[in-house]
Amino acid sequence: MEIRAIIIGFGHIGQGFARLLNLKSGLLAENFGIRLNVVAIVDSKGAAINPSGLNLEKALNVKKTKKTIAFYPEYGKHDMDTLNVLESVDAEIVIEVTPTNVINGEPGLSFMLEAMRRGKHVITSNKGPLALAFSKLYEASKKYGVHFKFDATVGGATPMISLAQRCLVGNKIESIRGIMNATTNFILTKMSRDLCPFEEALKEAQKMGICEKNPTYDIKGIDTACKMVILANALMNKNVTYKDLQKIVGIENIGVDALKEAYKKSCAVKLVGLASENRLLVQPELIPLSDKICVDGTLNAVEFKTDVAKDIVIIGQGAGPIETASKILSDLIDIVKYQNTI
Amino acid sequence: MEIRAIIIGFGHIGQGFARLLNLKSGLLAENFGIRLNVVAIVDSKGAAINPSGLNLEKALNVKKTKKTIAFYPEYGKHDMDTLNVLESVDAEIVIEVTPTNVINGEPGLSFMLEAMRRGKHVITSNKGPLALAFSKLYEASKKYGVHFKFDATVGGATPMISLAQRCLVGNKIESIRGIMNATTNFILTKMSRDLCPFEEALKEAQKMGICEKNPTYDIKGIDTACKMVILANALMNKNVTYKDLQKIVGIENIGVDALKEAYKKSCAVKLVGLASENRLLVQPELIPLSDKICVDGTLNAVEFKTDVAKDIVIIGQGAGPIETASKILSDLIDIVKYQNTI
Repeated sequence: MEIRAIIIGFGHIGQGFARLLNLKSGLLAENFGIRLNVVAIVDSKGAAINPSGLNLEKALNVKKTKKTIAFYPEYGKHDMDTLNVLESVDAEIVIEVTPTNVINGEPGLSFMLEAMRRGKHVITSNKGPLALAFSKLYEASKKYGVHFKFDATVGGATPMISLAQRCLVGNKIESIRGIMNATTNFILTKMSRDLCPFEEALKEAQKMGICEKNPTYDIKGIDTACKMVILANALMNKNVTYKDLQKIVGIENIGVDALKEAYKKSCAVKLVGLASENRLLVQPELIPLSDKICVDGTLNAVEFKTDVAKDIVIIGQGAGPIETASKILSDLIDIVKYQNTI
Repeated sequence: MEIRAIIIGFGHIGQGFARLLNLKSGLLAENFGIRLNVVAIVDSKGAAINPSGLNLEKALNVKKTKKTIAFYPEYGKHDMDTLNVLESVDAEIVIEVTPTNVINGEPGLSFMLEAMRRGKHVITSNKGPLALAFSKLYEASKKYGVHFKFDATVGGATPMISLAQRCLVGNKIESIRGIMNATTNFILTKMSRDLCPFEEALKEAQKMGICEKNPTYDIKGIDTACKMVILANALMNKNVTYKDLQKIVGIENIGVDALKEAYKKSCAVKLVGLASENRLLVQPELIPLSDKICVDGTLNAVEFKTDVAKDIVIIGQGAGPIETASKILSDLIDIVKYQNTI
């Protein structure tokens, strides 16, 4: 079966997904009978469009050397933006991976809504639009009869949403508690191990490419807050947005002394997100080293408390473009293969 | 949508599933539009059959007071066995939950094959048939075009198989390593905490109802070995049976001294199952307390090493009839709702 996809946004995650597709085209064909053609890639400066499918290696090379996909030979277009592409290019699936924005969710929010309106399934790693307008996006997907998949918005490589939605289906998710941000967890782990101040650990994280040049979303807890909103909506049927967080406290004021004190009590200070019946918040918490979610470095972990299966914890890498892209691929296979809707 | 199910085997798991269905019939209807009628229940002494659906509360009560479902008022049959029921009762799904047997897989193996031959989807928690004849069952399910779901064979409440098959789809599972048996993990944890001998911990486990009166399968590592065979077949495309295990060592010879020594090294002795490219074995191993799979009590844990998402660990309750039944329910919802095949 031939499936056509449009990739919107060609930064870390978009490029990671293209690299992953190159690696996995054989598996997609053999195991799932899927031939995936990326018929368009759009970035902020233009697009590349080929209804027969773009060469992804070439696309990655163009992006690397020329900074925009619009220089793709023959198929590059400097005068096409995302809305033009959605209007003029036929495709079954849109992969929306533009940078996140928690002020108004744009441009991702409009791109996703427009893709749905045009009957295209949407897979995204973009948290902002979901944190601000989850129910709007969900309702639009129902209205236009398309799938809306967003496992890649939370947990990096760790499939938190699909675990709960699929493998724990039939259970009621009573609470969600986890470490959801790789950057802050790396910083806290380094501060704790090397007894170094926050600024030094942050610089190290930036040097290693773990966080953005502007790390505000991470260290102020905003990134974790967005993820908690998404989880609470998707898994607990809460109708909440980013504004409903009762508390968002980051890690920028945590000193080495607090970490030393924690360690004396066989605990660690971690940036924890919590969603329960009455609570929705993000804050640094003292948690025992023996707590299953007490993971270090760039790991993420989440604990689902459920009514029947009881407590289920999943742990995995919380960052990495290709690792995160693996969830976009899982979402895609799920839509094509298991939903029988294409 | 009305779905008819036959439950074969009405011990702990079968009764757990009946209790769970009673709890969840509202959720099934509201969230998934499923009205599930259990049209037959079979145990070793007879059956109860009602094409309009049995009353599960009554069925549980009959089993409790009269020891066999055949005394179910009006619909009880002392002269019907499983093969008669599969022949004469219309149903879409068969829940096969008879006791496991690793000598020849019977009677579960024949029941499952017969159900498939008759075009019924099969969901099971019964390890023996899969450990001995996985490929035969898998091929039969393909031949007759039915679903074959067995998440409940491994991990108790912890969805190990569905996590890998669904949420990690697109990844190659390179190795599987885990603590898969709640009884032995409870015993080792108790021995380690209370510094008590094996026999005392075993008695405590029996008193608490965690293990069978005959705990051989658990303590000799046979139960874990069966689970490793199932995981290796289902998730790593290995064509192996129970006979292919390179080593099966249980915990019956582990003394308190070994556990004390382990603790001094910040380690614990755990019964570990391993499947990798070249290895398939079960043995007690010294693992660091900081290892993510180093869980205590009746918890189970497994680590999947994958090519793209890297290491993913899931932890949850490894035992309990209703907890395990939650995975039968998830498998059932998956077949009905997500496969669109009924």
